[in-house]
Amino acid sequence: MHVHFGRRVRRCPPDHGWGVITPRARRVSTTPRDALRAALSPKSVAIVGASENPNKIGGRPLLYLARYGYQGNIYPVNPNRSQVQGHRAYPDLASLPNAPEVVIIALPGDGAVNAVETCSGIGVKVAVVMSSGFGEVDAAEGKAKEARMRAVARGAGMRIVGPNSQGLANFGTGAVLSFSTMYNEIPAQDGPVAIVSQSGAMSVVPYALLRSRGIGVRHSHATGNDCDTTVGELASVVAEDPEVKLLLLYVESISDARSLATLAKIARDRELPVIALKSGRTTAGQEAARSHTGALANEDRVVQAFLEQQGIWRARHTAELVASAELYLKGWKPRGGRLVAISNSGAACVMAADTATQAGLSMAKLSSGARSKLEKVLPSFATANNPIDLTAALLSNSRLFSDILPIVAADPGADAVVIAIPVAGQGYDVEAFARDTANFANETGLPLAVAAPQATIANAFRDKGLTVFATESEAVEALAQYLSHVKLMQDSRRAAGVAEPREHGEGVMLNESDALALLQRYGFPVVEHDLCRTERDVAKAVAALGQPVVIKACSRDVVHKSELGLVRLGIPDVEAALHAFREVGETLEKQGLKNDGVIVARMSRGRRELMLGGKLDPVFGSVVIVGDGGKFVEAMPDAQVLIWPFQEDDVLSALSRLRIAPLFTGVRDEPPLDSTAVASIAVKLGQLLADTSAEVTNVDINPLSLGARGEGCIALDAVVYLRC
Amino acid sequence: MHVHFGRRVRRCPPDHGWGVITPRARRVSTTPRDALRAALSPKSVAIVGASENPNKIGGRPLLYLARYGYQGNIYPVNPNRSQVQGHRAYPDLASLPNAPEVVIIALPGDGAVNAVETCSGIGVKVAVVMSSGFGEVDAAEGKAKEARMRAVARGAGMRIVGPNSQGLANFGTGAVLSFSTMYNEIPAQDGPVAIVSQSGAMSVVPYALLRSRGIGVRHSHATGNDCDTTVGELASVVAEDPEVKLLLLYVESISDARSLATLAKIARDRELPVIALKSGRTTAGQEAARSHTGALANEDRVVQAFLEQQGIWRARHTAELVASAELYLKGWKPRGGRLVAISNSGAACVMAADTATQAGLSMAKLSSGARSKLEKVLPSFATANNPIDLTAALLSNSRLFSDILPIVAADPGADAVVIAIPVAGQGYDVEAFARDTANFANETGLPLAVAAPQATIANAFRDKGLTVFATESEAVEALAQYLSHVKLMQDSRRAAGVAEPREHGEGVMLNESDALALLQRYGFPVVEHDLCRTERDVAKAVAALGQPVVIKACSRDVVHKSELGLVRLGIPDVEAALHAFREVGETLEKQGLKNDGVIVARMSRGRRELMLGGKLDPVFGSVVIVGDGGKFVEAMPDAQVLIWPFQEDDVLSALSRLRIAPLFTGVRDEPPLDSTAVASIAVKLGQLLADTSAEVTNVDINPLSLGARGEGCIALDAVVYLRC
Repeated sequence: MHVHFGRRVRRCPPDHGWGVITPRARRVSTTPRDALRAALSPKSVAIVGASENPNKIGGRPLLYLARYGYQGNIYPVNPNRSQVQGHRAYPDLASLPNAPEVVIIALPGDGAVNAVETCSGIGVKVAVVMSSGFGEVDAAEGKAKEARMRAVARGAGMRIVGPNSQGLANFGTGAVLSFSTMYNEIPAQDGPVAIVSQSGAMSVVPYALLRSRGIGVRHSHATGNDCDTTVGELASVVAEDPEVKLLLLYVESISDARSLATLAKIARDRELPVIALKSGRTTAGQEAARSHTGALANEDRVVQAFLEQQGIWRARHTAELVASAELYLKGWKPRGGRLVAISNSGAACVMAADTATQAGLSMAKLSSGARSKLEKVLPSFATANNPIDLTAALLSNSRLFSDILPIVAADPGADAVVIAIPVAGQGYDVEAFARDTANFANETGLPLAVAAPQATIANAFRDKGLTVFATESEAVEALAQYLSHVKLMQDSRRAAGVAEPREHGEGVMLNESDALALLQRYGFPVVEHDLCRTERDVAKAVAALGQPVVIKACSRDVVHKSELGLVRLGIPDVEAALHAFREVGETLEKQGLKNDGVIVARMSRGRRELMLGGKLDPVFGSVVIVGDGGKFVEAMPDAQVLIWPFQEDDVLSALSRLRIAPLFTGVRDEPPLDSTAVASIAVKLGQLLADTSAEVTNVDINPLSLGARGEGCIALDAVVYLRC
Repeated sequence: MHVHFGRRVRRCPPDHGWGVITPRARRVSTTPRDALRAALSPKSVAIVGASENPNKIGGRPLLYLARYGYQGNIYPVNPNRSQVQGHRAYPDLASLPNAPEVVIIALPGDGAVNAVETCSGIGVKVAVVMSSGFGEVDAAEGKAKEARMRAVARGAGMRIVGPNSQGLANFGTGAVLSFSTMYNEIPAQDGPVAIVSQSGAMSVVPYALLRSRGIGVRHSHATGNDCDTTVGELASVVAEDPEVKLLLLYVESISDARSLATLAKIARDRELPVIALKSGRTTAGQEAARSHTGALANEDRVVQAFLEQQGIWRARHTAELVASAELYLKGWKPRGGRLVAISNSGAACVMAADTATQAGLSMAKLSSGARSKLEKVLPSFATANNPIDLTAALLSNSRLFSDILPIVAADPGADAVVIAIPVAGQGYDVEAFARDTANFANETGLPLAVAAPQATIANAFRDKGLTVFATESEAVEALAQYLSHVKLMQDSRRAAGVAEPREHGEGVMLNESDALALLQRYGFPVVEHDLCRTERDVAKAVAALGQPVVIKACSRDVVHKSELGLVRLGIPDVEAALHAFREVGETLEKQGLKNDGVIVARMSRGRRELMLGGKLDPVFGSVVIVGDGGKFVEAMPDAQVLIWPFQEDDVLSALSRLRIAPLFTGVRDEPPLDSTAVASIAVKLGQLLADTSAEVTNVDINPLSLGARGEGCIALDAVVYLRC
């Protein structure tokens, strides 16, 4: 059986890696990364195709540069006008007084390609190509034009953003090199959030949602077709901006894992949270992406494993991308995931507990000291447990908040707090509740969110700087995301980076005997066996291995042996073995399959059959999959993906997320399985695939027979592909 | 092994069923249901504990009755005042000019109990007891008081709402018998939505959220401790209101499945959608509910199965309870779940397709005719597939909407539409888009939702009567819920109602031999076996059954035989059988377990071992669970719950939702399993448990050995409990 990675991606990965930069490019003095930095804060900007009309693509950037206080030089290029939007205009790039650091290219079609060539000749650092009609329209000719532009730029050490880019916007420096309609509609405000997106729309929709909550956005960049600069690379430069406290990404296709890994490393080093919306999760989504932008489909579970490995939180959709944003901006230092919920409604308490459990938080167990203090403060008909139900007593006793919060603050078991006020109004001292809550939050530094569906109540809490959601479940889910992400960032200590992406095909398949031999050479435990070509070989093998044995055809043409009747288990003696040997040979012959001999192997005595596979992903490099084995691995998958580099602990953690996880700790009268042995061999497989000298592109060990703790594991069958 | 229903609920169910109505109650002329109808639209209302202060519990209802135009008679009862809030006051209930239909009781403690007694003596139809301090405070004494009030009321044919009820609000009749703060804070508006909730807060939070979207709410009722009238029963009366088009429930504990089933039947008959938020989904939530209100914990997967069976959609939290509300109010007649997505952003198209797939919708395949028409209308760089990406061409061509929508309308493959406009503004003819979309929606009647994060754009569409969400994913998820719920309502054709809830303990366990014999008597296929007490019996049994056989101890004291070494498989001959017989007997003796003999059974030749269990749930009656079998059913559960009555088709549908579902259609070289046989025996089990004369309270058939299609299934082992 072949590695079970769903639909296979066979294409050759686009080469965006600067590791293969041409010798010509090395001549330039700045690094490619330095050049790209100019895009965020250029000393001068030229606009090729500049327009007097601020609603045209070539007119909007001029409008925005003026509005947002850009301090550098602005050079409109337009052969038909002497002035554009109040700036002196130039007939062409050659006429400019000096080379602009950034040039916006807003010309249609081949005009854009020519402009890129001109730019590269005069020392421009970044060309922002807004023009469309490239790879997103025509996968052949369009992509070829992109490649030509990239080659020219690289030769000159120039960077390209785009084509088909809506532009870049940095509200910190006023360098708003964008034609987005959104900045005309919703006023900008500099702030701690940065957005980097392939899609133009998705560079500004999170902006709109955040602005409507009063959150400032500094960066909002759209990279378009990513022919040179990818989202990951631009984001890695944005991540250097110390004012950025939260980075949001929208990615439709990951062609360049390394730049995302670089970004993740920079982010980890400065504890900058990164949330990514990677769309194309489903086949339908991938088809839509392909038909719209010719995007390469990534295998979604590999994407998932990669983002987790890098400490990047994955949002499922736009609402989730921004749902917890405010919480990230508080500068909290969370210590765990034990929640305290406080409400004047018992129902809100119950729902907070439900949601917390389902979102992976636990309800804090308050100390008995805290509980007895609560009992003194709360009315007799309230309960001094967590969640803490203040009941309607809140109406008659406005001091309940100020009495209760210090008790919670003093309890070391409380890591985060949700305060839900589903109903309040006349008769409630909401101002006091909000003030007491804000004081508590400021003094303890505990992560805290408020839930209030009434705008008046919500605003009272917001005015004190608190984060408010409509309902307790939304508040708990947002806190849960934030706390889980902080933990993910802490866990993501894998600083070694991602394996180099490299081109590969599936290569040639070895027959089972060669596959087992190769694995054995690299130190994998492999079932004892003999490759037999004659009846004498078979008799000798049975004698040496002891009964019963397994007889299997060995053929480089066959992946699924058992379905062709080419596997015989539990052969009790030599007689039966010889019979099976003959039958298997005849079956191969009848089907016209290559007969490389017959494998006689010892019967396994494992307690569970797992599967362990791996492949070289064109984008993510060495990728290993481990899960439950047997013949139903495809029909009823139960597997986890790991991306190299990883360690035994990572494998153990992956095993603990399997459906069959209870087997590793022992269930009923079954002893625990040897998870350590699996971890060790999974790491070996990751290493083998990452080792270019081994030339292995694909491995599928199924079954991997696993014993009880201390008994180890052993490969009973394997398929291995070598690079052609 | 015992039936795997998680934590067991052993308590005796509260008897809210009017099926056990006392003979005395039968003497009253109106039915209990008639009496309850008065609560929604009483001819007269008295308030015991009436207050001049409109912010007190006894003052608010008077304020609201006046404000919302209640037309009936109002009788404040207050011994200390001649007038209350402008109404003539009476010193006590006995002084009233005639018996009020509804009395609000807002007195503390025993005063409330006395008032209920007085009410029941003067012909009051409904007492709304707002007083707290009953079962929610003290599970023993408080519940006892509730029982006393209920007994008194039943004797007189009077109904009680509460105690601990925040009250009832009917904005259609102005009968707002509530002290909720919310109606003071957020103005009411009569409309098509009804809310019935145990919790006071949860009767008004959905109200607040709906009102903030401009949706009118007619009913908002809080039933409190449900000592007599339950949420289900009150909702079943509300469901008769023809103006109600959507019914929302909040339930913390279901003590009365029958009234919910009655509600569901009324709702199905008039196609009224019902959405329920049943909290206490998790252990933490159930604990919170118990400590706050002494609520009985329902087993969550049984609740899930019950609500599905009844066609009631289950919301996970408050936001989900109201998320799709507007869509339900459109009066659409959806024909399927194939979605068309249209956007001026490719990213929105990709994310709409992702979300649709993950929410259970499919992307409509447009006909080739529609596609070629689209190609003529769309610019060359757009693609004429679904999702339809209008690209930035929408800016320059405002007729794109009016050109494209008729093509979609004519395609029979389109069941629902999402239109996403993530960015628009100056230069876009948004008015025209909104008008064209509204015309399309009105003419086709197709379910349609719009996504627009900008308030100005959203409002332009809202002004045309369209439903708008911030993002495409929220729009798609809301449509998916609505369409799936409509389908669930259609599927929920089980008009037979729910089995009568009846009290039961676990009863006494039969030994395996008796258990198998009982099942055989009721027509279950059972493995061929003999109960042997002597060696001679064993020898005879082996001879009769043929080899190999299975030997198992038979003891009424043992549930998990294999863990005690009391099961021996694959016994090849008489000799070995006698040996096993002796050993098993010794093991029983050593452990001091009752020896009822030894079972010698034929070895099974099934292809998969399933488990089939059932029990009498104290609330939901006969409940059957079917799933994958083997020794790991508890550690790695894969099971579905069915609530009686159900049919073979329901079982087949449940089997198709199992993880092992692929086995029933055949995987790789395995033949499909005999799902029909499982369906037939599961129905038999549901029937057996519902049949009171059988006295069976609990059955666990594990393993149920299942053959390939046509080969049937057979019970290899069973545990059966009979009523004591």
